Formats: sequence, structure tokens, C-alpha cells
Amino acid sequence: MRDAYHEELDSIGDSLVEMARLAGSALGRATTALLDADLALAESVIASDEKINELHHELENRAIDLLARQQPVATDLRIVVTSLRMSADLERCGDLARHVAKVARLRYPESAVPRDLHATLLEMGQLAQRLVAKAALVIATKDVDKALELEQDDDAIDALHRELFAHLIDERWHHGIETAVDVTLVGRYYERFADHAVSVAKRVVYLVTGEHVAEFVAATEAAESVRD
Amino acid sequence: MRDAYHEELDSIGDSLVEMARLAGSALGRATTALLDADLALAESVIASDEKINELHHELENRAIDLLARQQPVATDLRIVVTSLRMSADLERCGDLARHVAKVARLRYPESAVPRDLHATLLEMGQLAQRLVAKAALVIATKDVDKALELEQDDDAIDALHRELFAHLIDERWHHGIETAVDVTLVGRYYERFADHAVSVAKRVVYLVTGEHVAEFVAATEAAESVRD
Repeated sequence: MRDAYHEELDSIGDSLVEMARLAGSALGRATTALLDADLALAESVIASDEKINELHHELENRAIDLLARQQPVATDLRIVVTSLRMSADLERCGDLARHVAKVARLRYPESAVPRDLHATLLEMGQLAQRLVAKAALVIATKDVDKALELEQDDDAIDALHRELFAHLIDERWHHGIETAVDVTLVGRYYERFADHAVSVAKRVVYLVTGEHVAEFVAATEAAESVRD
Repeated sequence: MRDAYHEELDSIGDSLVEMARLAGSALGRATTALLDADLALAESVIASDEKINELHHELENRAIDLLARQQPVATDLRIVVTSLRMSADLERCGDLARHVAKVARLRYPESAVPRDLHATLLEMGQLAQRLVAKAALVIATKDVDKALELEQDDDAIDALHRELFAHLIDERWHHGIETAVDVTLVGRYYERFADHAVSVAKRVVYLVTGEHVAEFVAATEAAESVRD
């Protein structure tokens, strides 16, 4: 049987997974709200961000309480401190989903983004959602290989982000400045959302290996080159 | 004489003040680089962000070490955990200054922003710099009244940010889409920089009063209305 302390650590992990799930769901709905100009859905994303913020504050309080009562050291201490950071990342993901929903709400009943960009933005949204789902899995399983995949997944989002900018500055752009501003901001929100998901995964790598991702990858490659 | 533990806490405070100073300096130089299309200055901002990142990592390690060795409780524990968060805010300020510098570098030898927006952006940059300087003072002095000023200062930045958007979507805008995208992003970077400075000040309020800013202001107003 696990002791109370480790049960509490597990429950902090569960909260992080739940926050990631909520953030992913929020971003999915925000993307639909944006593309379909769905006001009710946008409002639901904006309202539900409160839930993620509450989980974040609860988690912070529980983590600080755990530090005070149990005074963990070494790995256990690192788990608690890292959980605080992951919680901050996921709280921010929730904010960014809310920002996307707010753009959708602002332009209702129009869609804030022109039809010829829908496919790119839908793909950015789906990729970002997949990233945070993978981050949740990484938190739950501590799977370092899976965690390392997130940086490559993020490259795909960066590529879509560049594609978006290429559309914007193409001389055939005829949707005006206001729409260009909206698309610029929305693109940035998706990109930052994905960055925070990657950051969560990197923190798990650090937790498991005691090394930051770049060091870990370098060490692994060095070990592999010796074996070759 | 102070004990080793409190000396170490003080030195963490000193590092936070130093990080805020560096972030403010970086943003000031980034703004000049942006408006004057000064490539060397932009490069210097981009390179010097490394220093802020190093301070951030050092501070994190020292804080975690302090938690492990001294196992603080109550207020002392809250100081250490809050310092970690302030460090993350200030590290992000450094990133945002670097982002501004990167836009300057990307458009060199042109200035990325048209002349008629220089005054607004200069003012945003100067206000944001003043905000982080005030945040540094708040960290050093734990002055709650000063900390509460930052939210009002931030309102001034938000007003400038809205002014910037009004320029962008004005039908007389004739600087093209690429410039509109640059201005949108740069405006967002200044706004986020200021948000993080406000966040630092709010954390100090929480540290000193044990209450989040909204609760503290409500309680103070209630106490004052009783006195009236």
C-alpha cells in the first residue's frame, strides 16, 4: 500500500492530467467557435477557463501544503516543484484557448478568419490539442521517449505558423488589415499553447532523467555513438 | 547578525532585482533598436538574454537547494516558492525583450515600424520599462502600496495598446500587411512584458499580506468604509 504522502503526490499528478484534458478540450472548442463563428461555444470556452484556474490554485495550495508538512527532499522535492511549474504551463494553455475564443466572440456573427485559412488554422488547432493530450499522457506515464516526440510535433505547428504568415503577406491577400491582425494574434496563441505543452513534456524529462532535454539528448547520442 | 538561511533568502531577492534590472535594460535597448533600426543593439539584446536565463536557472537551483536543506515552513516557504514564480515571470520578460529585438533585426536596415507609430511604441516601451523597475523596487522594499500602483500603470499600457490597434485598422493605414503583422506582434510583446511585471508585484502583495490582490483591495476598502 502506498503511504499518504505518495498518494498525495499521485493526486497532484491526476490534477495535472485533468488540467491538460480541460485545456485541450477548451482549445478544440475555441477552434470550432473561431471557424464556425459559434458564439455559444466561444462563451462556453471563456466561462470554463475558470475551472482550469481553480484547479491551478488548488494544486498550488496542495503542493505548498505538502512541502510544509512532509518536507520532501531529492526526487520527491523535485516532483513537487516541477508540478507547480507544469500547473502554471497548463493554466496558461487555458488562458490561450480563452484568447482564441475571445477573438471568435469579438467578430461574431462573422468568422474572424477567412475561409481560405480555415484548413491551416484547423490543423494548427488539432495539432496543438494533440500535443497537450500527449503531454497529459507523458505526465501520467513518465514516458521519456514520448516526451521527446513533442518537440518534433511542435515543429509541425511552427511550419503551419510560417504558412499562415506567408498567406498574410502574400500580395493577393484581400481580407484587409483587421483580419490580418486577428489572424496574427490567433496564430500566436496556438503557437504559445503548443510551446507550453512542449514545456510540460520537457519538465517530465528533467524529472525522470535529472537532465534538461538538450543534455539528455546529447548524452543519449554520445552513448549511441559509442555503441555504433 | 542574520543567519545563513536568511542571508540566502536575501541573496535570492537580490538576484530577482538583478533579473528585473536586466530585463528592463534589455527592453529599453530593444525599443531603441526597433525604432532606430539599430542592428548592433538588437544583437546585443538577443545575446544578453542568455544572462537572464542563467540567473533564472541559478536562482531555481538555489531555491530548490534551500527547500531541501532548510525545509522552511509557513512564511519562509511561501517566500521561496513565490521567488520561483517571480523568477519565471522575469525570465519571460527577458524573452519578450528578445522577441522585440528579433523583429528589429528581421527588418534591418528598415525600421520595422512606421514613423507615425514611433511615439506610441516609444511610450509603451518606456512605460513597460518603468513597470519592471517598479517591480524590482517592490521586490526589494516589499512596499505593498507601490505594488498596487502597478495595475494602474498597466492600464496606461493597455490604453496605448488599443491606440496602436486603432492606428492599424484605420482606413488611412498605408504601410501594408507585413508591417501590420510586425506592429501587432510587437504590441503584444510589450503588453505581455508589462503583464509579467504586474504579476511580480502581485506576488509580493500576496507574500506580504497573505492575500491575493483582489481580496486585499476588497478587505482594505471594507475597512476604510467602516472608518468613514
